[in-house]
Amino acid sequence: MNTIGIGLLGAGTVGGTLIHRLVEEHAAIAAKTGLDLQVRSIAVRDPSKKRPFEAPGIAITTDAKSLVDDPAVDLVVEVMGGQDPAGELVLRALEAGKPVVTANKELIAAQGSELIAAAERSGVALLFEAAVGGGIPIIRPLSETLAGERITRVMGIVNGTTNFILSRMSEEGTAYEDALQQAQDLGYAEPDPTADVSGADAAAKAAILASLGFGTWVGLDHVPHTGITDITATDIRYAANLGYSIKLLGIAEDTSAGVSARVHPVLLPTDHPLAAIRGATNAIFIEGPAIDELLFAGPGAGGDPTATAVLGDVIDAAREILAGAQVAPRIRFAPSELADFGSVPTKWYVRLEVADEPGVLAQIAAAFGEAAVSIKSVWQEGTDDEATLLIVTHRAKETQQQEALERVRNLDCVNRVAAAIRVESDES
Amino acid sequence: MNTIGIGLLGAGTVGGTLIHRLVEEHAAIAAKTGLDLQVRSIAVRDPSKKRPFEAPGIAITTDAKSLVDDPAVDLVVEVMGGQDPAGELVLRALEAGKPVVTANKELIAAQGSELIAAAERSGVALLFEAAVGGGIPIIRPLSETLAGERITRVMGIVNGTTNFILSRMSEEGTAYEDALQQAQDLGYAEPDPTADVSGADAAAKAAILASLGFGTWVGLDHVPHTGITDITATDIRYAANLGYSIKLLGIAEDTSAGVSARVHPVLLPTDHPLAAIRGATNAIFIEGPAIDELLFAGPGAGGDPTATAVLGDVIDAAREILAGAQVAPRIRFAPSELADFGSVPTKWYVRLEVADEPGVLAQIAAAFGEAAVSIKSVWQEGTDDEATLLIVTHRAKETQQQEALERVRNLDCVNRVAAAIRVESDES
Repeated sequence: MNTIGIGLLGAGTVGGTLIHRLVEEHAAIAAKTGLDLQVRSIAVRDPSKKRPFEAPGIAITTDAKSLVDDPAVDLVVEVMGGQDPAGELVLRALEAGKPVVTANKELIAAQGSELIAAAERSGVALLFEAAVGGGIPIIRPLSETLAGERITRVMGIVNGTTNFILSRMSEEGTAYEDALQQAQDLGYAEPDPTADVSGADAAAKAAILASLGFGTWVGLDHVPHTGITDITATDIRYAANLGYSIKLLGIAEDTSAGVSARVHPVLLPTDHPLAAIRGATNAIFIEGPAIDELLFAGPGAGGDPTATAVLGDVIDAAREILAGAQVAPRIRFAPSELADFGSVPTKWYVRLEVADEPGVLAQIAAAFGEAAVSIKSVWQEGTDDEATLLIVTHRAKETQQQEALERVRNLDCVNRVAAAIRVESDES
Repeated sequence: MNTIGIGLLGAGTVGGTLIHRLVEEHAAIAAKTGLDLQVRSIAVRDPSKKRPFEAPGIAITTDAKSLVDDPAVDLVVEVMGGQDPAGELVLRALEAGKPVVTANKELIAAQGSELIAAAERSGVALLFEAAVGGGIPIIRPLSETLAGERITRVMGIVNGTTNFILSRMSEEGTAYEDALQQAQDLGYAEPDPTADVSGADAAAKAAILASLGFGTWVGLDHVPHTGITDITATDIRYAANLGYSIKLLGIAEDTSAGVSARVHPVLLPTDHPLAAIRGATNAIFIEGPAIDELLFAGPGAGGDPTATAVLGDVIDAAREILAGAQVAPRIRFAPSELADFGSVPTKWYVRLEVADEPGVLAQIAAAFGEAAVSIKSVWQEGTDDEATLLIVTHRAKETQQQEALERVRNLDCVNRVAAAIRVESDES
């Protein structure tokens, strides 16, 4: 039997589920893959803590370095999260010639370039299918199956919490704060939801998608992100009237200005496949000249789906260990120009509260024009002495759009720029 | 540079596109993968035929066996289609220790078991990502990324022609014959559309999905198939009123009676993700306890998407050649009980034309009851002296459902069983 010893760093939700699956489904996995996967040891912070899994015969240690060095451990699975000490431990394993499977998006987004280089030097695999999209197979399809495609854009709903919140706001008219509370009550959102609602979590995933999609490493500091905290039920309603849904997207794009990765809310045409993704579901949409459009959708988080993704990687890495050869890297990264976000073409929806008097529209149109942004459509609704103006622009450089907003904001007739959200559509 | 010599069997639409891509994007592929992929020779039937690609420096031969044996050919790509002589040539390559990439669903469905065994004996890869779902990455996600999941069901829209026809019938009320003609005019359907509309093409793909999903080889003769030739715009309209769309699905299922694979039209609840797949698009829906539901959607056919899938496999196989080791099989097949279709639980929609007189419903209900099939809902519409009855049953064994249909057909009060189509829904 082809026995592979596994060492686990971390035994939280994903780690616990993984151990359970490796023990419970040992025979089924062996039949399907020919592999005898044995969990040798688990490194935890607090060994006295009660754990939701039974692990007879599995050593529990607080000494993660020794676990990595243990000759009985052929393969290291990192599910502890965070950069420190995960980064150091993963590097240590790779340098010792042990393949590593990790679910840690933050680690890969921040240190992926160095870690992948270390894996390449040692001729072992570093796999991270679970880092983006939870149980959705996306890392391997994007970096391997589509290696022969010139991908032009990857857009993803890669944070389930925010999609849940936006879905509630859209379907029930719920206010942001109430939808967030529901997400917390249902366990979709953490007590401190900042990483989710600020777009930071999605930014790490967008960095990974951009790096794999375009074969050039996009560091986390090259991914500007805006979250959903300013999205209101009012704008969701107005957007729906205009034929759009509001989604928080990670966008990785090969633009005229270079590779761009970013996270922000967008108005998406309601007939776009991503507009139909509801609740905590994740989805990734890939475009390229030959494949046209691909959609992958499924559960983006949770112990069970994530453990499935980790397990797939473990099986893959174990198979390579048994082949016994040095492993060529699955993807190579070449330096490439990264776009400054300011030079990327964007398109905007702007909601203005303006004085309801003659000449206002002319002044606003002039302000856009001075920034060389042209207006695609205007919709006006009067309420007493104030009016609401909804403007959708044509595409123009992000800097021009920002300049237009600034000019509009400074007009005396504009009481408030109530909302400004980018639009993603195929129209110019 | 890591040079890999490629020999192509066949130079039709997919082969021609592939050669074009390998030549045009040689530098981009090399940058992304570190591979120098060189097409050495192409085996064709008629060398005098004008081809849509330029191939300077590439030998063109009619001697496919010599191409396979050529020491300059490290990797064989089979895109000729059909079983003969493709099967013999693929086997020859594998036995010579050369990895093979094929897009040939018919060959894999019919001879996959023997060919995979031959690949395993030689320790080389046999890859066929393009055989199902064209440009959609599905083979590798299903067999590798999800290797650790106990998949319960795979359902797919795996034939674009029939989905195009059903979409037209549903969206425009077009009659079947006219929708087929449109599909032919647009190049979606062959002049002889039998393989598509009979469900035979989808059956080969369902056999492959079942084999990979459940790790047991399901031969093509274990996949009963019914096509769409009997579907009418009338039933599409009635189904829509009842909340269903009609789709031709390949279904691979782990049932209480064993593994079942089959192809037939189904009524699918309109809120099911597959119900939203329109036109020639393909989609595969995978269910399992941990991943819950995954959807993959994209272009299911065409030279460009298919060439992308073949190219991904070529890159993968080339990488393994360079690693220099014997390759362990990606998936192992264990014998498992295959369900007799008769014992699989199914659910039906039945449209009856009946005499509009008292007692008819009682007789029909009794006929179903005698076959131990219970009725979930009945809808009746009278027209003069004849009435239309729509019946949706609860789930029961396929043999019972067939018996019920037979009993109903034999009733004097039933003028005609106008339609009988299975229903796939989560309800019993």
